[in-house]
Amino acid sequence: MRFFSDNAAAVCPPVLDAMLAANTLDTAYNGDRWSAALDARFSELFETPVSVLWVSTGTAANALALAALCPPHGGVICHDQAHIQVDECGAPEFFTHGAKLMLAGGAAARLEPDTVRGLLAGIRNDVHQVQPHALSITNATEYGAVYSPDQVAALGAIARDHGLGFHMDGARFANAVAHLGCSPADVTWRAGVDALSFGFTKNGGMNAEALVFFRPDLAVASRYRRKRAGHLLSKGRYLAAQLLAMLDDDVWLANARTANAGAQLLARAAGDRLVYPVEANEVFLRLRADEAAKLRALGFDFYDWGVGEARLVTSWDQDAAAIAPLADAIAAL
Amino acid sequence: MRFFSDNAAAVCPPVLDAMLAANTLDTAYNGDRWSAALDARFSELFETPVSVLWVSTGTAANALALAALCPPHGGVICHDQAHIQVDECGAPEFFTHGAKLMLAGGAAARLEPDTVRGLLAGIRNDVHQVQPHALSITNATEYGAVYSPDQVAALGAIARDHGLGFHMDGARFANAVAHLGCSPADVTWRAGVDALSFGFTKNGGMNAEALVFFRPDLAVASRYRRKRAGHLLSKGRYLAAQLLAMLDDDVWLANARTANAGAQLLARAAGDRLVYPVEANEVFLRLRADEAAKLRALGFDFYDWGVGEARLVTSWDQDAAAIAPLADAIAAL
Amino acid sequence: MRFFSDNAAAVCPPVLDAMLAANTLDTAYNGDRWSAALDARFSELFETPVSVLWVSTGTAANALALAALCPPHGGVICHDQAHIQVDECGAPEFFTHGAKLMLAGGAAARLEPDTVRGLLAGIRNDVHQVQPHALSITNATEYGAVYSPDQVAALGAIARDHGLGFHMDGARFANAVAHLGCSPADVTWRAGVDALSFGFTKNGGMNAEALVFFRPDLAVASRYRRKRAGHLLSKGRYLAAQLLAMLDDDVWLANARTANAGAQLLARAAGDRLVYPVEANEVFLRLRADEAAKLRALGFDFYDWGVGEARLVTSWDQDAAAIAPLADAIAAL
Amino acid sequence: MRFFSDNAAAVCPPVLDAMLAANTLDTAYNGDRWSAALDARFSELFETPVSVLWVSTGTAANALALAALCPPHGGVICHDQAHIQVDECGAPEFFTHGAKLMLAGGAAARLEPDTVRGLLAGIRNDVHQVQPHALSITNATEYGAVYSPDQVAALGAIARDHGLGFHMDGARFANAVAHLGCSPADVTWRAGVDALSFGFTKNGGMNAEALVFFRPDLAVASRYRRKRAGHLLSKGRYLAAQLLAMLDDDVWLANARTANAGAQLLARAAGDRLVYPVEANEVFLRLRADEAAKLRALGFDFYDWGVGEARLVTSWDQDAAAIAPLADAIAAL
Repeated sequence: MRFFSDNAAAVCPPVLDAMLAANTLDTAYNGDRWSAALDARFSELFETPVSVLWVSTGTAANALALAALCPPHGGVICHDQAHIQVDECGAPEFFTHGAKLMLAGGAAARLEPDTVRGLLAGIRNDVHQVQPHALSITNATEYGAVYSPDQVAALGAIARDHGLGFHMDGARFANAVAHLGCSPADVTWRAGVDALSFGFTKNGGMNAEALVFFRPDLAVASRYRRKRAGHLLSKGRYLAAQLLAMLDDDVWLANARTANAGAQLLARAAGDRLVYPVEANEVFLRLRADEAAKLRALGFDFYDWGVGEARLVTSWDQDAAAIAPLADAIAAL
Repeated sequence: MRFFSDNAAAVCPPVLDAMLAANTLDTAYNGDRWSAALDARFSELFETPVSVLWVSTGTAANALALAALCPPHGGVICHDQAHIQVDECGAPEFFTHGAKLMLAGGAAARLEPDTVRGLLAGIRNDVHQVQPHALSITNATEYGAVYSPDQVAALGAIARDHGLGFHMDGARFANAVAHLGCSPADVTWRAGVDALSFGFTKNGGMNAEALVFFRPDLAVASRYRRKRAGHLLSKGRYLAAQLLAMLDDDVWLANARTANAGAQLLARAAGDRLVYPVEANEVFLRLRADEAAKLRALGFDFYDWGVGEARLVTSWDQDAAAIAPLADAIAAL
Repeated sequence: MRFFSDNAAAVCPPVLDAMLAANTLDTAYNGDRWSAALDARFSELFETPVSVLWVSTGTAANALALAALCPPHGGVICHDQAHIQVDECGAPEFFTHGAKLMLAGGAAARLEPDTVRGLLAGIRNDVHQVQPHALSITNATEYGAVYSPDQVAALGAIARDHGLGFHMDGARFANAVAHLGCSPADVTWRAGVDALSFGFTKNGGMNAEALVFFRPDLAVASRYRRKRAGHLLSKGRYLAAQLLAMLDDDVWLANARTANAGAQLLARAAGDRLVYPVEANEVFLRLRADEAAKLRALGFDFYDWGVGEARLVTSWDQDAAAIAPLADAIAAL
Repeated sequence: MRFFSDNAAAVCPPVLDAMLAANTLDTAYNGDRWSAALDARFSELFETPVSVLWVSTGTAANALALAALCPPHGGVICHDQAHIQVDECGAPEFFTHGAKLMLAGGAAARLEPDTVRGLLAGIRNDVHQVQPHALSITNATEYGAVYSPDQVAALGAIARDHGLGFHMDGARFANAVAHLGCSPADVTWRAGVDALSFGFTKNGGMNAEALVFFRPDLAVASRYRRKRAGHLLSKGRYLAAQLLAMLDDDVWLANARTANAGAQLLARAAGDRLVYPVEANEVFLRLRADEAAKLRALGFDFYDWGVGEARLVTSWDQDAAAIAPLADAIAAL
């Protein structure tokens, strides 16, 4: 069984059904009725007017968001383990035309207010140094930690005080909200977030993410940037339909809860092997090479994470029964 | 009935079936077995080793191809009505980091060798002027004309003589090949083409295009560029499956033949209203405003094209019976 | 004697003297007292508060101005013979990160209001097409024509109505003003110009141009862009000193008047050989190959301009006596 | 007296004389006889054929060099205190179109082979991560340390083994060579360096730096990039003349020796206040706020460097007599 990434899971039935239902002639690009419904539907979810753009990947959503918040000569503060820094092959630099990522550390890939303030204090305010224009965090983080509304708001206050745009990479936003049990609004715009990459693909979609702008004016230029980046699909309705299907009946939350629950089962089995608290659907645990080999021999697939650690990711389609074999195997190590 | 674009047509059954068949767990990104099969399958079709990248849009395919062929300080020769110039919101400039499109005219959006030679002759070979590094043509052209193998080869010879990379925008490549009845190889690499944007979306796909490199070395950097542009989908198998399904049993050709045949029916009905010879699935005809209104009143939807002209595009799902009402209505004007 | 470009002339004595006077220790970059004096000095000249950046080349001034006025996904309307299109190796595309130059024709490289309006009318207002964000004209034009205040204002009104930034490439602005006899304000901000590349190098400077922003807010980001482009010289005082020396005692006007007067002498000699009216310091005349050879045999150096034409450029250091031999030779052809 | 930067010093007499001697009509851009002499003159100095481009700033030289060595989707390994990272406002990102600087630490801003190897080992070789394409070091470093030929060669071997282009920022290359007493070749191409930013401005020039390519093929595209960046001055002879004047009679070495000797005087006076060994013309010393105030009250100007430290920079025009007052004041603290 595969635990190496939620990226590889199958598409959930409501999404597939919605795509099949969209398989009729309609207007091209984003003129169709599914795309046209997005702003209203997401505004309802977020309890405030938002502008939403569908894109095919989280990388595109992140990079478009950063381009909307940071000029080419500016900088984006983020964690040194952030996906935008580590795993997007320079997409932020491409879309922003060369803005600099300004890196800070922090446990479990979480930025702390003091760290951000310290980084800001070290930047001379002159033309020789790249000036920060945006702040980006990932929620849930790359190491499975979740920022609470208060934690986001503390960073949001810094962003506001320093005139920084505030972006949230929510590739696993659903897992974060499922963990927090709060309103999506609480952990985003009410905490100062300007733009959210709201991920659906890892959570049961096929190839659709929502770039949500809480300041709708930011979306205007982004619509040109999306086209210019080759991300305006001619049959966009198949993307919009995925997003709508995930919001209907809170499929997004149900899927995330399943994945989170799976991770909790693994966490319990892992006990003090855990490297970080498990708050979403990722489990990092200490695992010797021979232990990893033993698990793999049993048919479990996952990534080594540095030396002596491993990453296990649970998915929307893995219920307790699907998780149990691995949990048992870990407990038996 | 809609004739405004093949962009809006539904997805054909074999493609949908293939996507459903791919709805199982597999490796993420392009590590899956469908993606892994692409190079071999397209190499077979083109009778030469090729490297193939799936992308979601023709704009991305075109822009990635141009970025592979032209440095930021270079220029790309193309028709002034080329899609890359007129309808991609500057995607070529984005992906190439600012290369200049060097425009030439020509009937039916077709570049002629003499015109290209004339344009080349007018460029001073010094550092003050952008130097041409690539040539891009569209086949079938934006006005429904088809370059024959000889016509492509004549341009290919110019490209070779001037050290230009040679790109073909084949958003309607299937329609061109269906018209020509030649091997895909004859109208591409055998005629000097280095990179082809091979379109499937307009021809019955959902959101998959193939960027085909006939010089496989060009693909190496392009794989990084694809990721960096946010075009490496995490569940890439759904794109690869579309491409494979279209090649199986020559669905791509069958679909294109249907669309072309529909255009011929319209062309016959249009008679001397035709602005250009109809060689693919686009029909441009002279139509007064009152005539256009009359057709629209009958339920036919299409684009006006400048003043006194209209564009009709037929699709893979429109057989003779589906075309007949419009053909009759045109004949009856 | 050389008439191929004012680019190659020597530096005038007041400029050299000022540079020598600046050869003392002072603060680096633009913190010195010469640089600090620029805004006030140019504001006085232009009768309005302006922000001024020195740069070493007209290409840098133009490209920085366009980057301030046009986003990467936008377009800049200019003449198809404009220096920014023809002779800057893509600098506008580099500095704007890929904005598209949108070309229009017009006699003597002069844009006409109707032409600009026509070009604007042809651009669909959707995300598939690059939208215009700026208008750029050259005064005096590349063919030696001069826009009057009214002519500039007519274009300025179009720019204002369409929300376009308005840039003037004034590589030979001094020659234009010398010809017009108007206030520099009349032909710039009073006519709607937002940014002016005010050239000094061709007019007797060594390597200093002034980028003048009539909307000082535009200068803020441009100061970062200048540094980022490697154009913030560490000993900037030698550039600032040049600009100040040229403004003192109206050296800039005196030099331009000399050059213009020389061109008039040549124009008179050329008679009906003239291709364009001579309004600045460039003379385009019809010249057969044998005639060109004859002039060259007499020691005159100049550029052929296409077939059967030649370009003669006069400089600040060529008085009537220096011009007379060529004028006589032309008259004697 | 000012010790805050060699950037602010006056221009040395041989350079000024050469500029005055160049004040005659000649061909524009880099067609003049001074520019034409550069390749041969620098090839002689470096004992190997090189291609040389003059530019006005070290930032431009560095950024052009990196653009020649690293594609937009690549990375440049450098020290986290490198000028290209800290003080160029993102110029490397601008010229490379978004390449990522990959940062490593090291005492006195010097990269160590083990550190570089460790950084390289941490980069996964897949398309999700930016791949390193170049290595850049500064010699002398930003903290006044000098890489020996062996130290450079050790890094050069790593670069060669990993296919990285190797750039040296030599803003104070003269100071490094003066310290080492070696041939310029030994510490550059013989040690694997591909491109050198050879600084002259800090060392007595006005606004001229030499970008030296030891692989002349790299210079071809760079000449277009220089123009495109607005760095091809129309009267380039005034830059070329500066470079030639500095090489004549080894003015560059004599100036650097003077500056280095001044730094040694200060170093001796500073004793155990020194933060780093003094090997070039920069002195970093521990200085309490009250001590700094005392020195400033005596008329000495310099930069604080973080808390409790200060940076003193000596210049070509400060001989022992000019240094003595500050040395005495430091000793007397």
